[in-house]
Amino acid sequence: MSEQIGFIGLGSMGLPIASNLLAAGHQLYVYNRDASKAQPLVKAGAKQGMKPVEVAQPGGVVFTMISNDDALQSVVLGQDGLLQRLGPGGLHISLSTVSPALAQKMAQIHAEKQVSYLAAPVFGRPDAAAARKLWICIAGQPEARKRARPLLEAIGQGIFEFGDQPELANVAKISGNFLIASAQEAMAEALAVAEKSGVDRTQLIDMLSQTLFACGVYQNYGKMIAERRFTPVGFAMELALKDINLILDTAEQTKTPLPIASQLHDRLISGVAKGRGQMDWSALTMGVDEAAGIKK
Amino acid sequence: MSEQIGFIGLGSMGLPIASNLLAAGHQLYVYNRDASKAQPLVKAGAKQGMKPVEVAQPGGVVFTMISNDDALQSVVLGQDGLLQRLGPGGLHISLSTVSPALAQKMAQIHAEKQVSYLAAPVFGRPDAAAARKLWICIAGQPEARKRARPLLEAIGQGIFEFGDQPELANVAKISGNFLIASAQEAMAEALAVAEKSGVDRTQLIDMLSQTLFACGVYQNYGKMIAERRFTPVGFAMELALKDINLILDTAEQTKTPLPIASQLHDRLISGVAKGRGQMDWSALTMGVDEAAGIKK
Amino acid sequence: MSEQIGFIGLGSMGLPIASNLLAAGHQLYVYNRDASKAQPLVKAGAKQGMKPVEVAQPGGVVFTMISNDDALQSVVLGQDGLLQRLGPGGLHISLSTVSPALAQKMAQIHAEKQVSYLAAPVFGRPDAAAARKLWICIAGQPEARKRARPLLEAIGQGIFEFGDQPELANVAKISGNFLIASAQEAMAEALAVAEKSGVDRTQLIDMLSQTLFACGVYQNYGKMIAERRFTPVGFAMELALKDINLILDTAEQTKTPLPIASQLHDRLISGVAKGRGQMDWSALTMGVDEAAGIKK
Amino acid sequence: MSEQIGFIGLGSMGLPIASNLLAAGHQLYVYNRDASKAQPLVKAGAKQGMKPVEVAQPGGVVFTMISNDDALQSVVLGQDGLLQRLGPGGLHISLSTVSPALAQKMAQIHAEKQVSYLAAPVFGRPDAAAARKLWICIAGQPEARKRARPLLEAIGQGIFEFGDQPELANVAKISGNFLIASAQEAMAEALAVAEKSGVDRTQLIDMLSQTLFACGVYQNYGKMIAERRFTPVGFAMELALKDINLILDTAEQTKTPLPIASQLHDRLISGVAKGRGQMDWSALTMGVDEAAGIKK
Repeated sequence: MSEQIGFIGLGSMGLPIASNLLAAGHQLYVYNRDASKAQPLVKAGAKQGMKPVEVAQPGGVVFTMISNDDALQSVVLGQDGLLQRLGPGGLHISLSTVSPALAQKMAQIHAEKQVSYLAAPVFGRPDAAAARKLWICIAGQPEARKRARPLLEAIGQGIFEFGDQPELANVAKISGNFLIASAQEAMAEALAVAEKSGVDRTQLIDMLSQTLFACGVYQNYGKMIAERRFTPVGFAMELALKDINLILDTAEQTKTPLPIASQLHDRLISGVAKGRGQMDWSALTMGVDEAAGIKK
Repeated sequence: MSEQIGFIGLGSMGLPIASNLLAAGHQLYVYNRDASKAQPLVKAGAKQGMKPVEVAQPGGVVFTMISNDDALQSVVLGQDGLLQRLGPGGLHISLSTVSPALAQKMAQIHAEKQVSYLAAPVFGRPDAAAARKLWICIAGQPEARKRARPLLEAIGQGIFEFGDQPELANVAKISGNFLIASAQEAMAEALAVAEKSGVDRTQLIDMLSQTLFACGVYQNYGKMIAERRFTPVGFAMELALKDINLILDTAEQTKTPLPIASQLHDRLISGVAKGRGQMDWSALTMGVDEAAGIKK
Repeated sequence: MSEQIGFIGLGSMGLPIASNLLAAGHQLYVYNRDASKAQPLVKAGAKQGMKPVEVAQPGGVVFTMISNDDALQSVVLGQDGLLQRLGPGGLHISLSTVSPALAQKMAQIHAEKQVSYLAAPVFGRPDAAAARKLWICIAGQPEARKRARPLLEAIGQGIFEFGDQPELANVAKISGNFLIASAQEAMAEALAVAEKSGVDRTQLIDMLSQTLFACGVYQNYGKMIAERRFTPVGFAMELALKDINLILDTAEQTKTPLPIASQLHDRLISGVAKGRGQMDWSALTMGVDEAAGIKK
Repeated sequence: MSEQIGFIGLGSMGLPIASNLLAAGHQLYVYNRDASKAQPLVKAGAKQGMKPVEVAQPGGVVFTMISNDDALQSVVLGQDGLLQRLGPGGLHISLSTVSPALAQKMAQIHAEKQVSYLAAPVFGRPDAAAARKLWICIAGQPEARKRARPLLEAIGQGIFEFGDQPELANVAKISGNFLIASAQEAMAEALAVAEKSGVDRTQLIDMLSQTLFACGVYQNYGKMIAERRFTPVGFAMELALKDINLILDTAEQTKTPLPIASQLHDRLISGVAKGRGQMDWSALTMGVDEAAGIKK
């Protein structure tokens, strides 16, 4: 059964996701700050709103895919925000990687308006989004999860439930990103010392990613790191720094020391300081190499 | 074609490996410092030597599976060491995780006696050894690699070649162990902050190890860490500390800063200081939890 | 020349400072959230206000000594805040260790009301405050600095100027606290390894603090750390964590990796997680000892 | 009372120390691997030996000032080593910063020959050595300490005793160097973030080193770091790395995690990897700046 749905945020992730919803037969109302980004969707049959509020229907469903806490608050709570119209019975599916603290706050504000807030952050780079291969972590009220499931099945390959409190899905998501960054840093360090010892980088990562670490993160990022090929930019270093800060903030609130996260933070902030904020996060390898005096 | 082969070192890894060589039809001469460990093999048809030198045949093949640099030097170079007898045309297959520096030294000493030294360190815990599921990294002269291959195929599921210089296989091995330890520490940290935020540890690790990290290291260690079940002891924390020191020594010689390895070192040394040297290395989780004030 | 002055915040630092201003002959109007703390000052001749605004005089001078950013904003900008009355020509001398970002914001808000905001954070524990031995870093408009100087001379032993922008004094202050914490952590580590090697802790710190490190921080904290005597509580671990977070926030904004600060953060957050937030920050030593398996 | 004494090792520290012993009226027999270094002393009346053994007298006193463990073992235990002649009743005063483990071994070997081994490592850069301003930590048998005192008083401004076991003085010495390096790293980090926030580096370090940190280490290194002037080379980064490795080795043996030392290790090894091994250790500042993207 197709549904009228709103979609806000048409960046490198939002655009392919919205396309898949459209392709699944849903009538789509889209909004993006830079309106030109909506063109391909409009051509394919979506309707475009000029303000976030315009894509919401009373009691309807709205997706958001927004890059950070501030921007999400703005499209939801602002003067033209979607909560101005979504109203009782509505469902807001938030795909963004935002802070658990904001998810908690959002859940409360939505509840006051009888709107459901479902946290549904996704794992996967833009190519995975296009291929409907995202992994989705969801948390929120049971009815919200039930209503969202068929919609989410059109954009991902697997859905994992984390309970009634939306922020738990966000914790799961930022934990995952933290693990990916950790794996990248560890690979970059291992390849640096191995290379300086005479081992071929590609030979080493091939062995590791066919055996102990035969999984996507090590295979894909391992190859990029071994070859020092940091394109295409699937996830910008600046956003990676944002996400490490999200887990460090969560650690602050729960009083949990995370030494590896602290180290990743210092690595990423150094990368941004050196002007690499828009490069793929795998370019943290450059910092590892520079510290080792490797010149490439 | 079966061959007479020597095997030195019947610990938790050496014993199942030797059993598999025996089961493959080779005549086996075994030696272990604590002679009683050889009983099961002797019952199954192996012959037992009382000194390392006794299991070597001139021009023959000897395997060693020894826990550290000093012990390996002793069984090879000592008064009763295997090099006293192995002689020209002999092949020493060293399965141990020793330092690249020792591998280099060994290669030279063996060459002077016209014996081949093949570094063949393995990945896998005792259950993998028993199941002939080891992954083996080899490096050494081409003829040595060729001669060793059929023997190694009887004990592992895959062989990866790293060239002519034996130490390169050791670098590959300790790089792998470094990555495994990194993954464990990162998981332990992520699960600590997630748990303190209200997320179920098992739910989180299940999601991660079915998606981004669908590989053995994350699945097996992830489960142990999530459940805080650090048995059986597949690899003792004390040995893990030894291996992190091996990569840090290699980093010292090549002047490569490895901040994650430094952090792991501090974590493991703390575990050993707290009396956990004989526990499985996944028990580094206890240190992560304690620092976070988690009481279990 | 004595002046009518307001003073807000009578904690362990504010109370002795206010006493010294009173003793210097100034007429003092004091406010504290917990009004009972003002008793000793009232007995000595101070007048008590029931709201922050009540201690401000149009065009007058008000000191604040408040524990964090939120509390400072509340007493300044709140409904009953001092800015409701201080007005054109007024001078607000902020002794608190707050974020550079807040100082910057405060300067702007004050300027809009033609009030001068002088950042004047102080170094020294409560006993130093009582003894008029504080060191004071000041930054703000030249006239503000000139007007404040004689008042500050009554409470400290030295004044250091950091220019026209108030936030620069705050940066100086949190840099200093970062260095003190670094010195404590380094001493705690050095004493742990020295003690485990057989060296007497006190003998070692005595040597160091009479020679290379013949200065207050090493002498005073060194003694506390060597003796594991973390009283009296001159500066609570919770506040130390706040200050390390202030410098990490400043590092975030300026994109500066600070690995030692990251390490201190993890140490302090662990202490707070273990329930030591109200202990003196020198108790970070307990975390160093615990990680080393030292039981005292 | 003047004494005939031997002196081995005429580097940047040994030469001024030997000069002071000569100036104090002692008859000096000197040895240095590069014999030409002895010229100034020979002109001033010293006699030169061509081998270490030649400067030792049976029952006499020999000083050594040697840069590392291996070199010390060579001049002491080698074929032409001083122990070949020093003999019963002799006293070897070892000024070098060597490992506690070597000091322990030396004490035993000397005792077997009825020679006293006194560990007497010194604090101070070459200018302090020239000015007889060294601080000296001594440990060894009571008679050895008593006999050495008047000699040491001619070269230093203060002597600190650490008991009967020579290695304890070495632990004290490397602990001190660890604290100096920690202070430098912390200052470099603080100045980086302060500078990026708009604070003048010199203004900040002046304030700190006149107040909380009014001691030599902060005043001297603080100035060098603030001004990024890393000359003259008082102590080479390569030697600093050696000393951090000495404390990390001691930490390894005693199972003591030292996270700050680990961080310093990574900083220094990176400096050496970048070709700065011969620069003054204060040049670790360059690594701090580079990571922060500061270009000078």
